[in-house]
Amino acid sequence: MFKKTLIIGCGLIGSSILRAIHSKKLSKSIIVFEKSAKNISRIKKIKSNIRFVKILNNQISDVDLVIICTPMSEYKKIILKLNKNLKSKCLITDVGSTKTNIIKLKNKYLNKKLIWVSSHPIAGSEVSGPEYGSKNLFLNKWCVIIKEKRKIPKKINLLKKFWKKLGSKVILMDSNNHDKIFSITSHLPHLIAYNLIKTAQDSQKIQRKNLIQYSAGGLRDFSRIAASNEIMWRDIFFSNDNIINAINLFSKNLNSFKKIIQSKNNKKLLSKLVNSKKVRKQIILSKQDVAKPDFGRE
Amino acid sequence: MFKKTLIIGCGLIGSSILRAIHSKKLSKSIIVFEKSAKNISRIKKIKSNIRFVKILNNQISDVDLVIICTPMSEYKKIILKLNKNLKSKCLITDVGSTKTNIIKLKNKYLNKKLIWVSSHPIAGSEVSGPEYGSKNLFLNKWCVIIKEKRKIPKKINLLKKFWKKLGSKVILMDSNNHDKIFSITSHLPHLIAYNLIKTAQDSQKIQRKNLIQYSAGGLRDFSRIAASNEIMWRDIFFSNDNIINAINLFSKNLNSFKKIIQSKNNKKLLSKLVNSKKVRKQIILSKQDVAKPDFGRE
Repeated sequence: MFKKTLIIGCGLIGSSILRAIHSKKLSKSIIVFEKSAKNISRIKKIKSNIRFVKILNNQISDVDLVIICTPMSEYKKIILKLNKNLKSKCLITDVGSTKTNIIKLKNKYLNKKLIWVSSHPIAGSEVSGPEYGSKNLFLNKWCVIIKEKRKIPKKINLLKKFWKKLGSKVILMDSNNHDKIFSITSHLPHLIAYNLIKTAQDSQKIQRKNLIQYSAGGLRDFSRIAASNEIMWRDIFFSNDNIINAINLFSKNLNSFKKIIQSKNNKKLLSKLVNSKKVRKQIILSKQDVAKPDFGRE
Repeated sequence: MFKKTLIIGCGLIGSSILRAIHSKKLSKSIIVFEKSAKNISRIKKIKSNIRFVKILNNQISDVDLVIICTPMSEYKKIILKLNKNLKSKCLITDVGSTKTNIIKLKNKYLNKKLIWVSSHPIAGSEVSGPEYGSKNLFLNKWCVIIKEKRKIPKKINLLKKFWKKLGSKVILMDSNNHDKIFSITSHLPHLIAYNLIKTAQDSQKIQRKNLIQYSAGGLRDFSRIAASNEIMWRDIFFSNDNIINAINLFSKNLNSFKKIIQSKNNKKLLSKLVNSKKVRKQIILSKQDVAKPDFGRE
């Protein structure tokens, strides 16, 4: 499918792509740009004959696929290097979690001869690093490809094929829609989880008790999400403007929830709680989770 | 350990206790008070020779252990029946999730000759009903026993032994402390999950898009918790006054989180996100969850 692929940043996502490309034989050779010595030694265990580069210079000039898997705050630096060293036939993509900012950055800084079609595989975990990667990470997961006006369809189709080979269900969206949708289904839930953990920490100080040891009744699940990579999530929170609207809507709802409790409005509270179950059913129907009950992880 | 046990309400928790008592041979015979015909036929599959009662009358007068496992809003009615039919040597307990309200109710309505020591096993799931019960539900889970002033220590010790036989780690607390702790580790997380799901539903209407199908990136985990039993959770939200304080602290933190994002305060945001990981470590160290990473349930 490709002659030479360059993976820039080889953590959980980058190394999972590396494993999948290798396993499905999607590229004759693979170059990995990775600075961390610890990560490099871990990646070497996946496949011994990977070429590593520590600077993006003319060593990368003959690649035909570039996948950027670093935190988004690294992108600008990377674009300037790509401008200097890539040929126009090369396809560039990335796996960043917010899209309007990336499209803007690319339109501003990327050499107009180069082609970048942005991707967002909806896959990951609270852990990071290549040691947690898996060739099956993208299997049956959504991958959003960002469609821009005047984008060359041929390259979109190539990228679509690539993600499908990795097992993903591909959907095309514009960057605005993407950022609105994921502000609700991913970015707000993470922010809320972080905020809940902060609230538990504060309460622990106020109450002077070890609350955390009694977390099995709910807090535990949030703590997992709130243990996600801080650099990745800082970049997301700073780059998706829709998060502020999402927080405002959440706060409005929380305030109304509080009032329902304070006024002991039985009917309104019950209808609120019953309604939530509908979403659970939709999530299971759309295969975003399984119906198997959870009694805590043993 | 007991001659005759009465389980009042035999859903997920009641049927799990039933299974555990049966398996560990903790009671010579078991009576189940359960109204739902569907539940009764399911419980009969667990053990055929259980006696079912549909009213609490003199049929229950010779029991020496009563475990109330109904929603808390049923307790008052039950207490009035117990007053009429129980003997003073009997030990009464319950598994309700809030405690100050139960202690008040008991002190107001329970016949002073009867002895009630309140329990709260920290175990459960988003599902309800006896078909999901398990004899191992309480294994290695906390069980809080409420200690009141002037409570007869002999009965506390008996109850302690009972929960330990079911595999629980027992801890004694007063009802105030209990309600403060679990307002943070359980009640607030559930309320926040319900509120997040409501916010996603509202956004779906506002954006006119099927957001829910992209829930794998975080929302999914909250939807599970927000699919919990509505009667149980209505009773909890209406009976733990500490929830309002918890909501207020959460809102204050959320507002400050929003300001940090709006002002793009890198240092503050990073320290917030890094701090959350500490709680995760505490939760794993205190065996409230396992360190195994989660990539979504397949």
